[in-house]
Amino acid sequence: MPRGSNQARIFLQELFQEQGGEQLLERLAPQTDDPPVSVAAGISITDRAVERRWKRITCAPGIRDVLLPSGGDVDHSVYEGNIENYIGRVMLPVGLAGPLRVNGLFAKGDYYLPLATTEAALVASYHRGATLLNRAGGCSALLLAEGVVRAPGFAFATARESGRFVTWVLENQDRIRAAAEATTRHGSLSDLRIQLTGNHVYLLFEYQTGDASGQNMATIATEAACALINEESPVHPEYSFVEANMSGDKKASALSFQNVRGRHVTAEATIAADLIERYLHTTPQHMTNYWRMSAMGGVLSGTIGVQGHYANGLAALYIACGQDAACISESAVGLTRFETRSDGLYASVTLPNLMVGTVGGGTGLPSQQACLALMGLSGSGKARALAEVCAGLVLAGELSIIGALAAGHFTRAHKKLARKRGTPHG
Amino acid sequence: MPRGSNQARIFLQELFQEQGGEQLLERLAPQTDDPPVSVAAGISITDRAVERRWKRITCAPGIRDVLLPSGGDVDHSVYEGNIENYIGRVMLPVGLAGPLRVNGLFAKGDYYLPLATTEAALVASYHRGATLLNRAGGCSALLLAEGVVRAPGFAFATARESGRFVTWVLENQDRIRAAAEATTRHGSLSDLRIQLTGNHVYLLFEYQTGDASGQNMATIATEAACALINEESPVHPEYSFVEANMSGDKKASALSFQNVRGRHVTAEATIAADLIERYLHTTPQHMTNYWRMSAMGGVLSGTIGVQGHYANGLAALYIACGQDAACISESAVGLTRFETRSDGLYASVTLPNLMVGTVGGGTGLPSQQACLALMGLSGSGKARALAEVCAGLVLAGELSIIGALAAGHFTRAHKKLARKRGTPHG
Amino acid sequence: MPRGSNQARIFLQELFQEQGGEQLLERLAPQTDDPPVSVAAGISITDRAVERRWKRITCAPGIRDVLLPSGGDVDHSVYEGNIENYIGRVMLPVGLAGPLRVNGLFAKGDYYLPLATTEAALVASYHRGATLLNRAGGCSALLLAEGVVRAPGFAFATARESGRFVTWVLENQDRIRAAAEATTRHGSLSDLRIQLTGNHVYLLFEYQTGDASGQNMATIATEAACALINEESPVHPEYSFVEANMSGDKKASALSFQNVRGRHVTAEATIAADLIERYLHTTPQHMTNYWRMSAMGGVLSGTIGVQGHYANGLAALYIACGQDAACISESAVGLTRFETRSDGLYASVTLPNLMVGTVGGGTGLPSQQACLALMGLSGSGKARALAEVCAGLVLAGELSIIGALAAGHFTRAHKKLARKRGTPHG
Amino acid sequence: MPRGSNQARIFLQELFQEQGGEQLLERLAPQTDDPPVSVAAGISITDRAVERRWKRITCAPGIRDVLLPSGGDVDHSVYEGNIENYIGRVMLPVGLAGPLRVNGLFAKGDYYLPLATTEAALVASYHRGATLLNRAGGCSALLLAEGVVRAPGFAFATARESGRFVTWVLENQDRIRAAAEATTRHGSLSDLRIQLTGNHVYLLFEYQTGDASGQNMATIATEAACALINEESPVHPEYSFVEANMSGDKKASALSFQNVRGRHVTAEATIAADLIERYLHTTPQHMTNYWRMSAMGGVLSGTIGVQGHYANGLAALYIACGQDAACISESAVGLTRFETRSDGLYASVTLPNLMVGTVGGGTGLPSQQACLALMGLSGSGKARALAEVCAGLVLAGELSIIGALAAGHFTRAHKKLARKRGTPHG
Repeated sequence: MPRGSNQARIFLQELFQEQGGEQLLERLAPQTDDPPVSVAAGISITDRAVERRWKRITCAPGIRDVLLPSGGDVDHSVYEGNIENYIGRVMLPVGLAGPLRVNGLFAKGDYYLPLATTEAALVASYHRGATLLNRAGGCSALLLAEGVVRAPGFAFATARESGRFVTWVLENQDRIRAAAEATTRHGSLSDLRIQLTGNHVYLLFEYQTGDASGQNMATIATEAACALINEESPVHPEYSFVEANMSGDKKASALSFQNVRGRHVTAEATIAADLIERYLHTTPQHMTNYWRMSAMGGVLSGTIGVQGHYANGLAALYIACGQDAACISESAVGLTRFETRSDGLYASVTLPNLMVGTVGGGTGLPSQQACLALMGLSGSGKARALAEVCAGLVLAGELSIIGALAAGHFTRAHKKLARKRGTPHG
Repeated sequence: MPRGSNQARIFLQELFQEQGGEQLLERLAPQTDDPPVSVAAGISITDRAVERRWKRITCAPGIRDVLLPSGGDVDHSVYEGNIENYIGRVMLPVGLAGPLRVNGLFAKGDYYLPLATTEAALVASYHRGATLLNRAGGCSALLLAEGVVRAPGFAFATARESGRFVTWVLENQDRIRAAAEATTRHGSLSDLRIQLTGNHVYLLFEYQTGDASGQNMATIATEAACALINEESPVHPEYSFVEANMSGDKKASALSFQNVRGRHVTAEATIAADLIERYLHTTPQHMTNYWRMSAMGGVLSGTIGVQGHYANGLAALYIACGQDAACISESAVGLTRFETRSDGLYASVTLPNLMVGTVGGGTGLPSQQACLALMGLSGSGKARALAEVCAGLVLAGELSIIGALAAGHFTRAHKKLARKRGTPHG
Repeated sequence: MPRGSNQARIFLQELFQEQGGEQLLERLAPQTDDPPVSVAAGISITDRAVERRWKRITCAPGIRDVLLPSGGDVDHSVYEGNIENYIGRVMLPVGLAGPLRVNGLFAKGDYYLPLATTEAALVASYHRGATLLNRAGGCSALLLAEGVVRAPGFAFATARESGRFVTWVLENQDRIRAAAEATTRHGSLSDLRIQLTGNHVYLLFEYQTGDASGQNMATIATEAACALINEESPVHPEYSFVEANMSGDKKASALSFQNVRGRHVTAEATIAADLIERYLHTTPQHMTNYWRMSAMGGVLSGTIGVQGHYANGLAALYIACGQDAACISESAVGLTRFETRSDGLYASVTLPNLMVGTVGGGTGLPSQQACLALMGLSGSGKARALAEVCAGLVLAGELSIIGALAAGHFTRAHKKLARKRGTPHG
Repeated sequence: MPRGSNQARIFLQELFQEQGGEQLLERLAPQTDDPPVSVAAGISITDRAVERRWKRITCAPGIRDVLLPSGGDVDHSVYEGNIENYIGRVMLPVGLAGPLRVNGLFAKGDYYLPLATTEAALVASYHRGATLLNRAGGCSALLLAEGVVRAPGFAFATARESGRFVTWVLENQDRIRAAAEATTRHGSLSDLRIQLTGNHVYLLFEYQTGDASGQNMATIATEAACALINEESPVHPEYSFVEANMSGDKKASALSFQNVRGRHVTAEATIAADLIERYLHTTPQHMTNYWRMSAMGGVLSGTIGVQGHYANGLAALYIACGQDAACISESAVGLTRFETRSDGLYASVTLPNLMVGTVGGGTGLPSQQACLALMGLSGSGKARALAEVCAGLVLAGELSIIGALAAGHFTRAHKKLARKRGTPHG
């Protein structure tokens, strides 16, 4: 080809030329002989069970000592019910940013931000943003909506059947809700939406889940609702599934972005020019220039929302605090907006899909509980405040990184802070 | 309003009715008096530095002992260069799934899958999928492309200036490349793309980064290229930034999805009906029914690609293995496809944006190194194999969850495996 | 660059090498001297006004005779109020497909499909699909929702002000609705949604617009609502706009796709294998193979929804029937699904954003009125049926094109039908 | 349900309550008895053929006279090869905006803008924008790339087969290109991209199509390439299709938006504040305020790119000039950016997917040819200039509508200009 091209074509062409495509491709054939011996599976975490598991594992010496030190630095049994096939634990370093002052509908005060990460410069950057925000009186934060969806799907022979099914569902909403809510003490069904495409019907059950992140609660309640529907609906689906991939679980989606998944929060601050100068070594105008160009960069690259690096702070906080780290996929989307005003730099972030909870999941494990407690956000009655603090964290991160990019310090920070480690990347 | 509505309106209406909107909103005002005392910031991790840091932290007793036990279970100084403001470490339990047999262009053999998570049922589900794949001879996997982008932006007065700038860049490509590549031993600049919108020019520098995930390498090289450009280009931008948010860093984007970000990999297997029946208690046909309905569910909800829960396995593996967990945002997108064939169930996954490396970042830390070593994938020359194993992991997860949903076991598994923990979600 | 690349870089490189970039770019400079004489602008369509307009136009002879033949084939004044700066009329050929049997909630019977297009093979393809559907007893069609949005935006100093504003709006919903509805006899405000991002508030006014497409109605009503808001709200925005680009007007958007814009319709049919064989020369299985591969092709290319060529039939019908052709942008999105069933091929289409009306806009002009009348869908009380017929049209088109692609006849049809014209494309 | 909800649920609930869901749904059943008599299909446009066609059509009297007046105002046979089942022609009024001064790489001069529409205020709005641009010396415009894609798909048993197939394709690129290019005098194959997902391979053939829009050319050339591939490849696909829905044909897609579909163009102008004041009655600052809020509105609603109403001007110009109006779907996407500068308002538009041509399609028909000739852009060698003029048109439209929204005149203009027609919308 004389002109443009694509990466896959070039990569394969070079690879196959080097080694012979045909021969390389032979490696892909299934190998059914001599299948590997599986890990000894199980949920039990007794010394004996873990011992038995390691016995079957073939690996270099020393690995076990790192993951399961003989001295015993942890009562492994605390992890029962949070993991299966347990073989030990990994450690991640925690850096503390802040405290960050948050003036929210639910959060009110100065919050430490425990961040578990192995990426140099991350904690320093969020810390710098938090310090700057504090000088400006902290950030404002508003929780705007809550909800977690499960989306069962029902398949029929025809749209006419779909219509009949929907008719029955509409007439029996109260009973369906009762069945769902009977499974939970803290949750409630707040909405039921219908998506009909020909002979397929998706029902979107939306729940209020209190202080839990709420995915399991939503699943169990919806299972109960579906059991009622499948038993009593006079129109029987050819098949149905308790989740048909419209819930936005573990993925960024336009649907959740439009509505809410978890908690929908916005945070903002206006920062005087002299603070920008002192802490970020640039100007509101130049940060706004950056925002404009990067917002359009986001649009040009086709992201859901436009923002800088929400994922960095959220992933680190989620890991430290026992949140479901896989939910970074949906949580780390949103809208960042910077403007120059007469009184300085206006900056806001909006996150419609924050999946956070202060009970359930990993929130009760020792390290994770400690991190939540460090924030003063452990246990019941704290989830809404946690969501607002997350928005504040993310705002701090956007200010800091945009400040660094505007001041031309971005690369320098990364180089300097990773220096201690040598430069294995280079 | 008599009819439809939205969550934010309802939430705010209820909230403000309960408590008085005006009064609640007073809480949002900035509070500049009595600013909080910042954490003692710093990169040094000596006993003294950490001690000094904790002294300034106000928190409930006991928290410190959990995050920084006095006995000393870890040489904290190993974390220098990976974190700032260090206060201790969190522990996450690791469950081992597999081994998984991978027949790849680069991975070849049976690989343990260490998964760090606090979510019940996750490890069990991936383990079940791996076991099933092994019975079918393992999965095939192909690395299809590699590349990491940095995208500096340059702003001019007019498009005419943009055009002049581009002319100069095109004429000086070789020097620009040389400047970029002078900063790195292992990386190379493999492409330079131009995006011009009026008086704005984005340059997309794409690098091959060897066994590193490569984000820092790409940043440093691009900084050098930009320094050359800013010094020597006869057309001076009004302003420029080393990254203008078109690189896809820490976010799912259509641009990266179309091309590659990190490693672009596909994996597949064909599984006989009797294995599906034995291990998943359902049929290829019914799993295909599920796939069809859930693929359309993904489209209806507006995701980038369509898949089930790539994020679950990837986040757990990333955390265990010292990968950048924030990159779950971009890594956990792709395309899952299931079909019923005469020889059973065909299943494939494709992930264009796997950000993984076996050197650099957190890969050298003790726990993380141990997990990579357990897979036999630590150090140089292993990143391509790691990418293929990740694709295999994800395939195992899709098979297992779709099997569970098709068999109606999805909720049951979550209930049962979280039982030990009590039911704090309920 | 030794490897991959992009089109813009290559195009500019070749262009500038050929001609000298610098010299070419000189052409871009603004030319303020000797500005062109504007067309004689105006809304009046009298012979004299049009004559005066042509007098000022410089163009080759003969052009005027084509656009405004001296004999007078049309009473030009009928176009007053539908166009400005009138200079004549263009003609587009109309082909008639069908009739198509539609079994809908609102449409019931056999409908001619007048299609105005200049693209060979288009009418023939839709006609083939309609004929096939008739053999199967016609298609089923269901209107599922209606609504047109206007989305004014309000900017404040802070989120606190945003919150106060929203509080006032929530308390004054009834008055706001009354103000909006006072402007219209046929429309009503059916929903008011709030989108708050920091100090910005978007209000989404959703209307039921009867038989009109409803954009003007929605604009005028929202203008009145905004006038009330701006006068009476105790919290004054720094600025506000009657439309802030969240209405989905003239563009495909995830927001409208999730909800409704105009009319939300689904249509389906199940077609016996022998009919597929006789009319399309292929099999249900092979068409399903095509559907699966092309649905994934749509996902891989990042479309909103997945479908084949809704735009072809819709654009042709819209032009013929006085609909707003620019609304093809939003109307021609949706979801096509094909499945092989024991009783043949199941096919459905779903279109959430059909902007159609049977009164207002261009529906009253002579040709356009005639086309609507040919369908039996002119005037009041017909818009819902028109929407269902549009869905049926689109279903016919999907069946026909997928049939052609599956049978390998796609190219042949285009070659043969354009043959008469010579092959100017070649 | 006590809280939030969705439109489909509410609509169906109301509808079914009014009329009885069961009864209504009966209407959806297929009706195989008494199938309608089809239109007399055919491509021939002789008086006799058309007469025979009308004889079979049942419709109210008078309709035929409007669509096919007895006097004969047109030689219908000119439409042969552009339409099938011809029954007559519709007329659309044309308003002339401009001329617009375009300073482009290819367009250079003052261009009339013929716009065929039935929507009041559209022509006036574009005319106002063009007049304003002229005062500023016209707009600059740059064509940045060209290309039209066809994307055949090939399905195999396994990814190993996919890999073998790709190996063969890579080795035989020159022959494949020769086969494709043998079908066309004016076209050339400029790129071949590979998308591999497990056992599926999509090949993206990208063509340069000269002055034609090029869709048919691309189809015919790709058909020839596929014939060669299917005959000679040693690896036979289980099935293949000449187009597998990755070409972006008739739909907005992220893939085309990232690259090019048709012509990729940008246009811009800087307009002094006093001109903004005189012509738009507002200020650069306030228009920039609007742009910022509306750009975020676009992001929040999930559009591909962000812009105002490209579709309005493009649809009107496409219909007038014999372009494929269905391509509005892909053509009317892009990026609008406004900024306040010291010398006034900077405004730019970028359209990556302009499907336009000056030969082929409907460009040779009488009215359409006349409109192109009025622009001075009929026939060979003009397509690139036409693309740049389209970008200028769109820029004029964005300036005018944003000016109207910023000045608060938007609604007023629509009310006033549609007044003559009465207010059927109201």
